[in-house]
Amino acid sequence: MKSRSPLIFSSLVVCAIACVSAISFSNTVSAQATGPDTIVDRYRADADRLIEAALADSFAYDRLAYMTDTFGPRFSGSTNLESAIDWMLEAMAQDGLQNVIGEEVMVPHWVRGDESLTLMEPHESNMQILGLGGSVGTPPMGITAEVLVVKDFDDLDAHADEARGKIVLFNNDTWRGYDTTYRRNGAIRAAQVGAIAILIRSVAPASMSTPHTGTSNYDENTPRIPKAAVTLEDANMMQRMQNRGQKIVVRLKMGATTLPDVLSRNVLAEVVGSEFPDEIIVLGGHIDSWDVGQGAMDDGGGVVAAWQAVKLIQDLGLKPKRTVRVVAWTNEENGMRGANGYRDAHVDEIDNHILGIESDGGVFKPRGFGFSGSGDAYDLLVEIGQLLEGIEAGQITRGGGGADIGPLMAEGMPGMGLSVDGTEYFWYHHTHADTIDKLDPHELNLCVAAMAVMAYVVADMDQRLPR
Amino acid sequence: MKSRSPLIFSSLVVCAIACVSAISFSNTVSAQATGPDTIVDRYRADADRLIEAALADSFAYDRLAYMTDTFGPRFSGSTNLESAIDWMLEAMAQDGLQNVIGEEVMVPHWVRGDESLTLMEPHESNMQILGLGGSVGTPPMGITAEVLVVKDFDDLDAHADEARGKIVLFNNDTWRGYDTTYRRNGAIRAAQVGAIAILIRSVAPASMSTPHTGTSNYDENTPRIPKAAVTLEDANMMQRMQNRGQKIVVRLKMGATTLPDVLSRNVLAEVVGSEFPDEIIVLGGHIDSWDVGQGAMDDGGGVVAAWQAVKLIQDLGLKPKRTVRVVAWTNEENGMRGANGYRDAHVDEIDNHILGIESDGGVFKPRGFGFSGSGDAYDLLVEIGQLLEGIEAGQITRGGGGADIGPLMAEGMPGMGLSVDGTEYFWYHHTHADTIDKLDPHELNLCVAAMAVMAYVVADMDQRLPR
Repeated sequence: MKSRSPLIFSSLVVCAIACVSAISFSNTVSAQATGPDTIVDRYRADADRLIEAALADSFAYDRLAYMTDTFGPRFSGSTNLESAIDWMLEAMAQDGLQNVIGEEVMVPHWVRGDESLTLMEPHESNMQILGLGGSVGTPPMGITAEVLVVKDFDDLDAHADEARGKIVLFNNDTWRGYDTTYRRNGAIRAAQVGAIAILIRSVAPASMSTPHTGTSNYDENTPRIPKAAVTLEDANMMQRMQNRGQKIVVRLKMGATTLPDVLSRNVLAEVVGSEFPDEIIVLGGHIDSWDVGQGAMDDGGGVVAAWQAVKLIQDLGLKPKRTVRVVAWTNEENGMRGANGYRDAHVDEIDNHILGIESDGGVFKPRGFGFSGSGDAYDLLVEIGQLLEGIEAGQITRGGGGADIGPLMAEGMPGMGLSVDGTEYFWYHHTHADTIDKLDPHELNLCVAAMAVMAYVVADMDQRLPR
Repeated sequence: MKSRSPLIFSSLVVCAIACVSAISFSNTVSAQATGPDTIVDRYRADADRLIEAALADSFAYDRLAYMTDTFGPRFSGSTNLESAIDWMLEAMAQDGLQNVIGEEVMVPHWVRGDESLTLMEPHESNMQILGLGGSVGTPPMGITAEVLVVKDFDDLDAHADEARGKIVLFNNDTWRGYDTTYRRNGAIRAAQVGAIAILIRSVAPASMSTPHTGTSNYDENTPRIPKAAVTLEDANMMQRMQNRGQKIVVRLKMGATTLPDVLSRNVLAEVVGSEFPDEIIVLGGHIDSWDVGQGAMDDGGGVVAAWQAVKLIQDLGLKPKRTVRVVAWTNEENGMRGANGYRDAHVDEIDNHILGIESDGGVFKPRGFGFSGSGDAYDLLVEIGQLLEGIEAGQITRGGGGADIGPLMAEGMPGMGLSVDGTEYFWYHHTHADTIDKLDPHELNLCVAAMAVMAYVVADMDQRLPR
């Protein structure tokens, strides 16, 4: 990267601090288990080869840039998504991976359409919004109504008699981490007290007039009202207006509609195991994204990192005893049809899914993995983690997984999620600004290295990772 | 401010460094001129009262928030601008300021209209844009054409034979500070080689998919072609596409149009001088803004800071010998009609304009002032600057002024511009994100204090500031 923006610079300080922490941790761990015949001794050479290969060039970054530029955002139901999947299947076969297939699943097809929010009183100006996934549209002329700003559901209840006929803005303005409460259920709660649409404060810690979309719910018992995210700036502004006693009137127009389900595909490719081909280490992310930005962080990077990890195992001629399978799941964002479809299609294999590894938090500087599984498995993974100390990515913490491997984990598969420096992730998450220029080739390569080493060693070690 | 975003946090490191510099500087200066009967001795008490009053509450911030929320962006030709001016005239009179008047000037009336840029190849997606001020529109169906990406005018010349019938993207991707070369003149140069529209990389060092608008030129001899700013992200993307040999096709739609000039007003208010009422210290900023965001930084904050500075002189019962006049100039952004109109209306007074002070770089933490004028005047101002050492805002540097006081400075008036920590200014400049939540009440108060002390002492000191 020739130059990094101040937005990126600001994270380097945080990263430096994080790195120091990681080093401290690694030193602690390295005092453990280093005798002969340990996993660390046995796999040091292979791990170092994988790490060296992962860091050797910008192939993964260039591939991710090609994918995100050429196909753009990859929303379920879109031509972009299916074109990206076609390309991926072809490129995986060209890579020499085995059993490259697209497994069909039906996915929802929500279309955003044109949308706008215009402040009408106390002055007239346009606001930046993103409709929430699954929202109904408004009539063509829009909905013009007064806004009632509430902090949370308790505040809504306290002002329930003021909500009828209004547009409720949920302005939960304290960022305590990713919290989808109001995005998911705000429309249901507001409709119950007679609101005719909702706005939510974007789920984000920072903003440059940046709206964030995401999934949201309706239920059977309340009217389906339109719903959209406003920026932190506009949420703050409407809060100030209400605090001053100013009447707030807006006109919301949304062309959103839900079309019939369409066919999509999960993408699978393998390095088949040399001794236990039926035992599977699955790693991946989701190929679909929201319909804005490029889905570079969420989750193009995760998919490409997992793909590159498996490709490196293949390219180096490593022959793991078990099968290493990369999966690019479809429709994580607004339906989970890919993850559920994979589980259903592979129901007979689930007991032989030894470990699932997902990257869906952005391919920033990796720290290690969060793991959900047995204590015996955890102890083994901590040993494997020592092979990643050299790149400060060996920290194995308790608890972790991912949305796409969730259905398999619910059936008993041990699962882990790549953990990374998440400082910036929610600045860009589900926005126009989720683009590749925010990512760093070296950090992506470190993610590839961590996933490759972890997947390969678990696939090749004598012992089957215990459940 | 209850909480500051990471975008804001990141600047605190820079600020801390700047503060250390400022302290070092102050120590150097404080070794100078501290004998009896110096300006510093004479005005220490008044200066401290002004500073104390400026820092006492959040009145200025609340007033700025009220103005920006209630009237919104204040673009020349808009109802918002004239409503803000009406309110300002009324509020200044209620403040007890003297000679509160609106001086009429005709201003341009450019209207943005609906606008969109859709990438058609290699994939279809919507891009975030802002049309450049003064642009012509496109036909209603838009212009669909291939994009030619160039770095600069030399690169355009080298590829002149490829530009005909295309949309040229000026992607000058090295930020070396604010440079409007391509925004101002790109359309002229591209039209000369047959391009049918231009896009420019937004003039900014950082982006969260943030387009930046601004003024731009046509000339008499070349066709007037549509022109818009794209985000850094999309400029980078199109550069990568071209570098890969991918064909880039976009559809640009702009409803921009220029309507007949309309009436606006410069706002003036005074504390009339007790001994030399005809001698004037003028301070201010511009009340107009671009038609996006709130114009909180550019330049609502400058106007309110100058206004508050004059109000404090009034409220404290200080009676400067010369007149202190606050001016909120209109139409700085796309015409300079306010500044030129003021000069013309006050042509007989210009020789008695002792000093002009402008704030138009955002009301962030002030460092002092940049001054353009004689060496004798500079030496006096450096002395006055010592009164601002306590708030680290006393650094007087050579060279400075402001767009609105420019026409007066061209006629011989000494001029100075408030200098501030400019780290973030161009992140938000001319964007939807120029909103009040990026500003800090205490930093705004420091700007008020600096302007109040400087204006008051120059207005009251025995010596007329030499030209």
